[in-house]
This record gives sequence, structure tokens and C-alpha cells, in this order.
Amino acid sequence: MTYNPLTEPIIQQLTAIVGEDNLSTAQADLDLHAQDQSHHAAHPAEAVIWPQTGQQVADVLRIANENRIPITPWGVGTSLEGNPIPVMGGISLSFERMNKIVEVHADDFQVTVQPGIGHKDLNEHLARQGLFFPPDPGANATIGGMLANNAAGIRTVRYGASKDNVLQMQVALADGRLIRVGSRSVKQSAGYDLLHLMVGSEGTLGVITEATLKLVPVPAHMSAVVAAFPSIEAAVETVVAVRGSGLDPAALELIDAAHTQMLRTTESINFPDAPVLFMEFHAAHEATLDYGIAMVREICEEMDAISIHATTDHMERKKLWHARHHSYEIMVRSHPDKQFFINDVAVPISAYPELIRYVETLRQSENITLYMIGHAGDGNIHVEFPYSGDDEFEKAMRCNQLVVRKALALGGTATGEHGVGIGKSKYMPEEHGASLDVMWTIKQALDPHNILNPGKIFPVQVEEPSPVV
Amino acid sequence: MTYNPLTEPIIQQLTAIVGEDNLSTAQADLDLHAQDQSHHAAHPAEAVIWPQTGQQVADVLRIANENRIPITPWGVGTSLEGNPIPVMGGISLSFERMNKIVEVHADDFQVTVQPGIGHKDLNEHLARQGLFFPPDPGANATIGGMLANNAAGIRTVRYGASKDNVLQMQVALADGRLIRVGSRSVKQSAGYDLLHLMVGSEGTLGVITEATLKLVPVPAHMSAVVAAFPSIEAAVETVVAVRGSGLDPAALELIDAAHTQMLRTTESINFPDAPVLFMEFHAAHEATLDYGIAMVREICEEMDAISIHATTDHMERKKLWHARHHSYEIMVRSHPDKQFFINDVAVPISAYPELIRYVETLRQSENITLYMIGHAGDGNIHVEFPYSGDDEFEKAMRCNQLVVRKALALGGTATGEHGVGIGKSKYMPEEHGASLDVMWTIKQALDPHNILNPGKIFPVQVEEPSPVV
Repeated sequence: MTYNPLTEPIIQQLTAIVGEDNLSTAQADLDLHAQDQSHHAAHPAEAVIWPQTGQQVADVLRIANENRIPITPWGVGTSLEGNPIPVMGGISLSFERMNKIVEVHADDFQVTVQPGIGHKDLNEHLARQGLFFPPDPGANATIGGMLANNAAGIRTVRYGASKDNVLQMQVALADGRLIRVGSRSVKQSAGYDLLHLMVGSEGTLGVITEATLKLVPVPAHMSAVVAAFPSIEAAVETVVAVRGSGLDPAALELIDAAHTQMLRTTESINFPDAPVLFMEFHAAHEATLDYGIAMVREICEEMDAISIHATTDHMERKKLWHARHHSYEIMVRSHPDKQFFINDVAVPISAYPELIRYVETLRQSENITLYMIGHAGDGNIHVEFPYSGDDEFEKAMRCNQLVVRKALALGGTATGEHGVGIGKSKYMPEEHGASLDVMWTIKQALDPHNILNPGKIFPVQVEEPSPVV
Repeated sequence: MTYNPLTEPIIQQLTAIVGEDNLSTAQADLDLHAQDQSHHAAHPAEAVIWPQTGQQVADVLRIANENRIPITPWGVGTSLEGNPIPVMGGISLSFERMNKIVEVHADDFQVTVQPGIGHKDLNEHLARQGLFFPPDPGANATIGGMLANNAAGIRTVRYGASKDNVLQMQVALADGRLIRVGSRSVKQSAGYDLLHLMVGSEGTLGVITEATLKLVPVPAHMSAVVAAFPSIEAAVETVVAVRGSGLDPAALELIDAAHTQMLRTTESINFPDAPVLFMEFHAAHEATLDYGIAMVREICEEMDAISIHATTDHMERKKLWHARHHSYEIMVRSHPDKQFFINDVAVPISAYPELIRYVETLRQSENITLYMIGHAGDGNIHVEFPYSGDDEFEKAMRCNQLVVRKALALGGTATGEHGVGIGKSKYMPEEHGASLDVMWTIKQALDPHNILNPGKIFPVQVEEPSPVV
């Protein structure tokens, strides 16, 4: 692939659009936008640009397109598959300075925001109005990044992923057009669903410059239930049973025994060293909550749970979830000499027990240290591999590949919520077959010079744009 | 636009694919596939084809594409915007003989079906397993038609539209490729969302040949609540209040006084002649239902409801819903000398009172007979215009246009659930702006010869394919 370098005359054109303070070629800025939280190699852009309006984004894209300069959007760098790394150089487009709440539509349970706002910051603001935006990937990812990668997280089992919680977006296209996709009307059957085409496209079809999100009322009543099981098989069969019962958990998380042990040690939580299910239930009415807890307790007992602990106490619930939310940091602290590779696959819920059994088998047969933590209610698991040195890294990558292939064989996906980025692109032909060609056809139609986040999603980018001469 | 006629040699090729019994050029068959339930003019195809497998569909499309023959999919003809009328002739592709349930995935709450099955027939089968597919447009529309038009209906306020209840589809493309889009995994962040690009595209991008749907458990407890109000303003303000309360109604329907009167007369239901809200609540637990009813009663009383009637009795609930479900037929029977034009717009819920007030004003200022019935909980209304003769038709069309423009001005859509078809295509530039050009770009990329359901969605089809010489 051949692009043009970002020359001084082009930089001057870009500066004229965003202003001097909003473009930098300083090494420190390039370094800060060269790497996400994954193991993928850092690569610097040639300039970082901080646009302040949708129109500026569109104008920057037009210049980049005319000059064949790659451009990669940047939220806050919490991605786990190299999604925002500017692997072809060019421009890193940071949304740090487009982080405002544009309007809260309280009667509609909607909010319109700029893409650079963090979802935690947004929810802090919305809490005053008794509302929240449910998708929660853990880190304080930006809304733009979450939408671009269709991020999900622990509450998705009830409230859906990012794609289910957005109604309308403003999007800048490669050629500098600024379009509106979707509608603030919750119902719309008026032509092609460009909204969902853009969501999850990882900035390769267009750049999100504004979004109207769906909100839900903060539930009046919440409970946490933690149940430990004699085996991971019993735990995952319980997941299937809870999902099949018609109960509607707001979270249904699996943590394997090895990971539970770390949480107990560091967070002084009274767990047995056993596989655990973390569950949360939300209700407008206390009786509903009591009914849900009673039903879950019954299911867990039938599955021979070692212990079942339910609480509606706010502080206790917070402490339990603190442990779950910080599970990654806890693992990192427990292995000061290691790096980590985080796998992310999902399968239909009926296939979840087989997937988990397969990972258990792998742990034994490969004699590898791994932890499992996952959004079990969605059939989603993260296998975490600590490693140091090339041998351990290669072993982790080999095991990751086996887990991905197993998930695909079970009718699942190579990525439930982290997106394709760099790391999962090689599995796309296997997952999509001829559909991947259709995706590429659409990519070429909307971004013929492949300037938008090149090197992501597609394993081989067959059409190589020529340099402008 | 120029297409080629369906000549005898092409018919022989097509017959070789589907067999003699599955292709007809008989006038009776052409007439049966020339018109839907709308006012749009009938237009016959040159042949009707009944494929029996996805591969046959793909092969038929390939032949049609090579020969520049238009091809329009046909479910069962219940559309209301001319969506399946083969306005350019060519082939009407009927899914009558692809109506099987392929597999029920009970543990996953999913079912895989062929597109020709009616949603009522599907739900009758699923009831034995305690499951159902929630979208319900009223008529026994086919699943393929519902997905192609993103149909919705009375339960969408809780369970979503067709687009929210599908996970995976097999789709035949214009060039004869047969692709799989989406995943049976409820979570997937693996590239572009081709599933939702195809849903609602009205057969203009590809033809759905199989679909895996999401199911939900039949709720253990249901209640119906009917409340009448002194004014339509009070009724619609109640809608906004119920939606804002955090209650989760499974249906929230508005019927104006004129329509209520017809229902009372024909169905011997004890209504006052006043605007009415029909509501339904679903719950796994009786206490939840009681709580919901109490809360709704309180809201309705605050809004000065004339009467509030709640029932959990199955037969009574059925009778009430029978009246709602048959409201269209009841209106038709009440006006034996009239035809009907059904409008369909939706707005953000906060704008619903203003939309309804506008229609009320129009009723007065235009001195026109109209009825309002709508999925109020979604901000969706159908204004029904009885007419006979050209003058009344033109007046109805003018009023329809005013209502559509008002909905668009309020941030809404020209079609909440009926799709664009023929009738709404002229509003697409106003609704989408430059996004419509992007839709057309995608259309051209996937169907360069515009053989798939031409004459729909786009107001002017700028690229005219040349005949093959």
C-alpha cells in the first residue's frame, strides 16, 4: 500500500482548518497516540490533530483523501486489538477536545454527545437525572470508540451492546461529506440502516462526529448474587439454566477458580477457591427482585452450588463489583513480571459449556497458565494469557488461535466485543466467507483510496491506492 | 430504465433451476402477484417463480442479472406501500413454497426459518415450547417480508422491531452469490453489520433466503389496561408519562374517539366515545404485574382519565385485543363505499403530543374524515383516510403529505414500520439528505444493473442500466 507523506504544505492546509493549537507533530504527542492497551506493536502517526467540530473532521478528511494520507481516529486508547494504532502513519485524529454533552433529551431518554466523552463521565452527569447509558466495557472508553468498535461489557446481557443503544449519528465520510444516519425516532423503516453499518466499522467507513444514545432509568432496586460451584462445568450449566429460565439478569459473569483466588487474596472477599458466577438483577419493584433472587437460588442449589450469597446492600454490592471491575488490574499486579494477552470470543449460549470445557482441556494439554473471565450470559469469554519472552508469547498466541477456531466451529465469532482491529483480521475469511468480499466492496465504494484506518478488519487489502503524482 | 423482456430461452434456463411446477406465466398467477394491500397501482410480472431452496434463489438471481431482468421478492402481499409490486415487470419471486421451520434452537431461544413462513403460523408452532417471536404487524405477514421491510407492530414498544429480533440470515445477492450475514452468537463485533444493512432494504440489496430469529419466553402473566380520556391531548400526555415512568409496557396503543366509537359499535365493547389507550403488561411474576397496574392507574388518574379498566382475565384480554387487531377491518366494514389510505409516521416520544395535535388541527381545517390509531409508545401513528373518487383521494394524499412533513420537521421519520416502497420514496431526500446518496452508492456497488426490486426506496434511479445486446 502506498500513501503520500504528510508534507509541510498539507500540514498548512490542515492547520488552517483546526488552528495551530490543534495540530502537533511533536514526538511526545505522536508517541502518546501510537499504541493502545494491546500487545500490538506501536506505530506513530505523522501528526496528531484535535478537531473541535464535525465540520472540521469532514474538512480534514477531505484534505487527507485528496492527498492520499491515511487517517486513524483516536478515542482514549483503551482498545485491545490495535484498533486505533495508525499503522500506516498519516494522521491520528484525536477526539479529546470533542467531549461535550450536546443535549439531554430527558423526556425521550436520549442524550446527544460528542464522540470524545468517556462513558463513565457521561454516566456521572446523567446520574443527576436518574438516567444511564448501559454499555460498560470497564475502562473509561470514549463513546466514539465504543460505537466504532461496538463495545459491550457486563450489562449487555440485559441492555444490549453499543449498537443496541444508539439512535442517530453524524458521520464524516472520506470525501469530506458530513451525513446524518439513523433517527431520534425509535422506530424507522426508511431505507438502508447506515447507522448500524457505521457502528462497529472501526473508523474504516466513516468517522463518528456526534451520537444520540438511548438511555434507561437507573433501576430503583438492584441485587448482587455470587454463587460458587464445585466445578466450572457446574457453573456454566447454571449459566444456561439461568438464561433458559426467563429471568432477565443485568449481569451474568463467570470467573474461573484461578482468577477467583486472586480476587479473594487482593480484595479480601470471602470466596472459596472455586469457579464463581457474579450476577446482578435490576427491578423497578422490590418484589420482582425477591422473586428473581429466590429463583436464582433454586437454580444454583439444583446445580450443587458450594455457596450462594445474595445482597441488596449498596456498599457490599459495590465491593463485589469493584473486585470484578478490577479483575484485570488485579491479575496484572499478581504477575509483576508478565505481560498479558486477552482473548475475546463468543458463541451461542447452548455451546458455551463446550467452549469452556475446551479451554479447560487446553490448560491441561498445553500446560499453560490462563485465566477465564467472561460475560457468560452472552456466551462471551475472555481467556487471559500471562506471558514473558517469545516462547510464552507464541504459546499464548497458538492457544488463542485454537480457542478462536473452536468458537467459530461452534457457530460463534472471533470477537464478541473487542472488535477486529489488527489481531482478529486473519480470522475474518473463516468467520464471514463471501460476506467479507461484500464488506470490502462497500469499503471500496465509500473509501476508494483506503485512507480511513487502513490495515484494520481486512486481512489483505487487495486494492492498493496509487500515490497522487 | 431499460430492462430486457423475459424471453423463452431465459424462461427455459430458469425452469431448469426450479422445475416446471415452480414457474408460471399464467395470467391468473401474474395477477395474484401484481398488487399488495395498498392503493398503489397493480403491475404484473412476466413470470412468477416459486423457489424451494436458497441455492435456487441465488441461481435465479444470477440468470436475471446476466440478462438484465428485474426481480421482485414476494411474501404474501400484505405490504402497505407497494413494496412487492413488480413495477418494472420481470420476475415475481414468491416464497410461498419456502415456508419451513428449519430448526428450533430451544436452549438459545432461537429459531431458524425459511422466509415464506407466516409469523402467526410460526408462533402457533412455537407456543408448544413456550416461546414466541414478538414482532406482530397484524396481518399474517411472512418472516421474509417482515425482515425486508423491518416491520414492527404492537409489541415493539417492549420487544423491538424485526431488526431487533434477528441474528443471522442467508442472503442471495444479485450476482448469484449466497452469503451468510450476522451470527447465532448474540454478541459479535467482527466487521461490518451486513445483517442490519439487509434488514429493511426491501429486497433491493439482496434476497433473504433463511433467517435465525430471536425468541422470548411466553410471559407467565399478562394484563390489559384500557383507559379513556376526556381529550386526545390528555391521552397522549399520558403516553409520555407512562414512557417516562420507567414502566415497560408490552403494548401502548392510542385510538382516537372516532375510531373507538366504531369498535364499540361493532365489537360490543363497553367504551365511552373518547380517546382510548390500550396497554398490555407482561411479567414473569404476578407481583410485578400488580405493581405495574397500580402505577399506570395512578398516572391515568392524574391525567383525569374518564375510565380505567384493568384485567388479567385471559378471555376479556383476548376480546379487547381482538377489537384492536381488527380495527382496520372494522373501519372498512363501517365504510362499505370507501377505499382507505393508511399513513405511517413516527417521531421522538416527546414530540408525539405535537404531532397528534397537528393531525387534530388538520381534521378541522381540512374538514376531512380521518381516524387515528397508533403505536403510541413508540411515537408511531397511523392516520387512516377513507376516500372515494379522485377529489377525496387527492385531499387524503395532500393531508398525508402534510403529516409526513410535520413528522420530519419534528425530527421523525416518513415511515415507522411500513417501509418506503413506492409511496414514501419521494420523502427520502428530505429525510436523509446526503445519506440517501450513500445508500445509492451501496445499491450500485451490490446491484450494479439495478435488477433487485427496482422502482422502490429511491425517488429517481439515476443510473439507468443499458440493455444487453
